[in-house]
Amino acid sequence: MARVSQEHLDARRRQILDGAALCFARNGFHATSMQDVLKEVDLSAGAVYRYFSGKEELIGAIVNEVLGTVREIYEDAARQSPPPLPDELMPRVMTRMKELRPGVLEDGQWMFPRLMLQVWTETLRNPELAAVLRPSFEVVRASWLKVAERYQEEGLLPDDVDTDAMARVMIAVVQGFATQMALFGTVSEDTLSAGVRALSSVRRPGSRG
Amino acid sequence: MARVSQEHLDARRRQILDGAALCFARNGFHATSMQDVLKEVDLSAGAVYRYFSGKEELIGAIVNEVLGTVREIYEDAARQSPPPLPDELMPRVMTRMKELRPGVLEDGQWMFPRLMLQVWTETLRNPELAAVLRPSFEVVRASWLKVAERYQEEGLLPDDVDTDAMARVMIAVVQGFATQMALFGTVSEDTLSAGVRALSSVRRPGSRG
Repeated sequence: MARVSQEHLDARRRQILDGAALCFARNGFHATSMQDVLKEVDLSAGAVYRYFSGKEELIGAIVNEVLGTVREIYEDAARQSPPPLPDELMPRVMTRMKELRPGVLEDGQWMFPRLMLQVWTETLRNPELAAVLRPSFEVVRASWLKVAERYQEEGLLPDDVDTDAMARVMIAVVQGFATQMALFGTVSEDTLSAGVRALSSVRRPGSRG
Repeated sequence: MARVSQEHLDARRRQILDGAALCFARNGFHATSMQDVLKEVDLSAGAVYRYFSGKEELIGAIVNEVLGTVREIYEDAARQSPPPLPDELMPRVMTRMKELRPGVLEDGQWMFPRLMLQVWTETLRNPELAAVLRPSFEVVRASWLKVAERYQEEGLLPDDVDTDAMARVMIAVVQGFATQMALFGTVSEDTLSAGVRALSSVRRPGSRG
């Protein structure tokens, strides 16, 4: 039997994950069959099932991979002194995701935001998917929390602000931006950065002059 | 023929819109039939079709009503001097929506965030819905822009910030928060407010002391 290199196995796994992500992004999780995935990646059932037992395992792997990347970026940021501010950090997540998943393109459009919408909606009626998504969300929340606490240690954020609420709002910005990208397709990471910077420059009346 | 009061007509219309919103929030737009809506509102086909020609018209009415409310709140805010800051204004949108649509509850859970997710996802593959959603998004964007410009006039926001990007990020926060409410069901308007306040209190290194 021919020896298969780890590199080959990884590339094959990548090919399947990207193909499945494209299928889900296009038609949603529910309306996509394993047959559709096999057709997209042009592999036999045996080749695909060697890696993934079915749609649930595929979507679990996709979600965990994405959120693992997000976590890495925030944990790396929390180690820097001072950590990059939100207007730099948030677009970085999007840029990095594009670099890591160049395969998830269709007609030049980045399909990840569509995939996010599809995953969320499917989660509303799929308890197995909800079970995957909830702990992943908590992990991202914890890593944003760590960044916010580092801002406080560096004197970049007052001690009395609600860092937990801040983490949720930061995540909301990325979620909402992805929604706008999926629906209207015209927003760039620069806009995200400029908008977050604008929001952080709002002054309370009477706090100046 | 009995004379039907405007009040009665309005109440009936409200009943149909709320029932349809519940159906769409539960199962999505695609998987909901007009039969499901009739069953939910317990009215005859004749009674419902008198008001709405079909699902597209129902969802159009629901989306326009929601975004009309959002626009009113922002336009009202832009007339105040100084206008309420984002941490007050954004939760107000959610609170007001709940007040206006008490009918859209199921087991005590507010179903609007779920409805938003369903509408977005359906929009990805339904050009008619996209045609409804895009101009409505532009209207909300324009009204946020007006608020941001009023902040500038009142000296609450530097003149050189990108108000268009800020409007997009503000909308993203609401979209993302609705996503978290739909998926995890545990976030309050107070958290939204505290998180936005935290984000606006981030300082640039060197900008102080």
